[in-house]
Amino acid sequence: MNDLVLTGDRPTGPLHLGHYFGSLANRVQLQDRYPMYVLIADYQVITDRDVPGEIRKHTTDLLLDYLAVGIDPAKVTIFQHSAIPELNQLLLPFLSLVSVAELRRNPTVKDEIAHSSQAAVSGLMFTYPVHQAADILFCKGTLVPVGRDQLPHVEVTRLVARRFNERYGEVFPLPEALMGEQPLLRGLDGGKMSKSRGNAIPLSATEDETAALIRKAVTDPDRMITYDEERRPGVAGLLTLAGLCLGRSPGELAEEIGDGGAATLKRVTTEAVNEFLRPIRKRRAELGADDVRRILVEGNEQARERAVRTLEEVRVAMGF
Amino acid sequence: MNDLVLTGDRPTGPLHLGHYFGSLANRVQLQDRYPMYVLIADYQVITDRDVPGEIRKHTTDLLLDYLAVGIDPAKVTIFQHSAIPELNQLLLPFLSLVSVAELRRNPTVKDEIAHSSQAAVSGLMFTYPVHQAADILFCKGTLVPVGRDQLPHVEVTRLVARRFNERYGEVFPLPEALMGEQPLLRGLDGGKMSKSRGNAIPLSATEDETAALIRKAVTDPDRMITYDEERRPGVAGLLTLAGLCLGRSPGELAEEIGDGGAATLKRVTTEAVNEFLRPIRKRRAELGADDVRRILVEGNEQARERAVRTLEEVRVAMGF
Repeated sequence: MNDLVLTGDRPTGPLHLGHYFGSLANRVQLQDRYPMYVLIADYQVITDRDVPGEIRKHTTDLLLDYLAVGIDPAKVTIFQHSAIPELNQLLLPFLSLVSVAELRRNPTVKDEIAHSSQAAVSGLMFTYPVHQAADILFCKGTLVPVGRDQLPHVEVTRLVARRFNERYGEVFPLPEALMGEQPLLRGLDGGKMSKSRGNAIPLSATEDETAALIRKAVTDPDRMITYDEERRPGVAGLLTLAGLCLGRSPGELAEEIGDGGAATLKRVTTEAVNEFLRPIRKRRAELGADDVRRILVEGNEQARERAVRTLEEVRVAMGF
Repeated sequence: MNDLVLTGDRPTGPLHLGHYFGSLANRVQLQDRYPMYVLIADYQVITDRDVPGEIRKHTTDLLLDYLAVGIDPAKVTIFQHSAIPELNQLLLPFLSLVSVAELRRNPTVKDEIAHSSQAAVSGLMFTYPVHQAADILFCKGTLVPVGRDQLPHVEVTRLVARRFNERYGEVFPLPEALMGEQPLLRGLDGGKMSKSRGNAIPLSATEDETAALIRKAVTDPDRMITYDEERRPGVAGLLTLAGLCLGRSPGELAEEIGDGGAATLKRVTTEAVNEFLRPIRKRRAELGADDVRRILVEGNEQARERAVRTLEEVRVAMGF
């Protein structure tokens, strides 16, 4: 069986540079090596919050971010969870293969609960790893890019695939986690870059917005710029960011800046980020609302055809 | 809003006279008063057992039983669970409205667990009341025929509908349980008539099979036939069965048989049941495999159109 990559995001707001270096850059490379499905996981937005928010806008923005960074809909199928009923139907037979005790001790669920804004654990959150198995298996994904902390995500999918095959005959591949290197990208306060901390540079920021964000970054009064993750996280964060954007090491950059102080560091970082975002902004500006709509419709159609075929195989295998 | 009835069965084997007098007779009456959807709940077969068994044959047999007793596909939409992905997709938003704690204390789930042949409680069983909410709400059912012990079934559906409407705007009616009288129909061993006890007369039994089954019924040596539920359950069971088939009271029949003994009682019962099943057998014999297939295809199409419309309403209400 040929490899196929399944990956995706929840549409909860604009993607930022942390997402780019953490996963999007990797996808742009993977799309030339494997067939790939990229899931806009809109139903998963309601696993960990009570209201979906501006889900429509977030979905369009997420797709725009994908296209802007160079994910190519000619190579990759980008689709929405909620548009593929046959994928979602797989949740039912898959739920019959997993026990409540197994769901209860799943680390992914525990993790979700910890990050949730819900008052109580919902049935959707509790069954979320099985839903994720449907996401991965509907297109017979074999490779799932994950970070180190997300390894258990793929375990439930493997369990579901293995049990299904044992009970009803060989239908699904056992997917593998594809571990990324995932450099730690610090945000503008020196902590991990994350939307919820408000320390991120969105991929959609203009030049001026980028400059303003970096201007307010937390640094320190020491004029001599050195790369010291432990003792100077703010400075190290800017050096890492500028380094990633320029393809250079943070230590090298620090030496170059020398005793130029925070002002020079911020100017160098701003220029590096803006240079880096230039082609991304250009692609974004070229995309009209119609393009985005068409790409989503086409991606959903492709994904749905795949889901219809898989569900039919599942029905036949189960004797329905 | 006009009333609409949702009812159905799991396709686990032939229906019997207990089903007829317990629910089918009621449906035949209801179909002239309300629009009705009848669900062949094929996915629910895997809630309480590990393998679906001869699900295809059971589905066809169930439909044949429906048609034979006079459920009329011109009045009623008969459809299969697994054929309606848009119905099944509703499980996802609905699961987000119910907490794990609420699922855990649900009496329906406890009841399912008690009757299960599964080694462990599956995720599908645990979420089964929410799936049932999708069954009822996809067609905006307002009336759900249930027995006295099944009242909690409808409670989760009402909870889901109420919470959905509160959070996203008025989409669903709050369905009501429609309580049947449900006479206790004893099987041929004097216990409750049930397929799993092997004491039932299937609706598809031939005249000879019916006679053979009743011949082996448990009675007692007292030649004087009296109607005594407590002390003569076997005799009372046959009297009730014959009475239901003839539209007469069991006590009256007992007086008529007098000291004719078990042999007369069994002859009277056999004749009554065979007379009763005559038109049902006739209808069944007139139905070809093609008719059955066509009726199921048409019912599935109708139900699917309904589900597509409801899912679209749900998507819009949720802002997707």
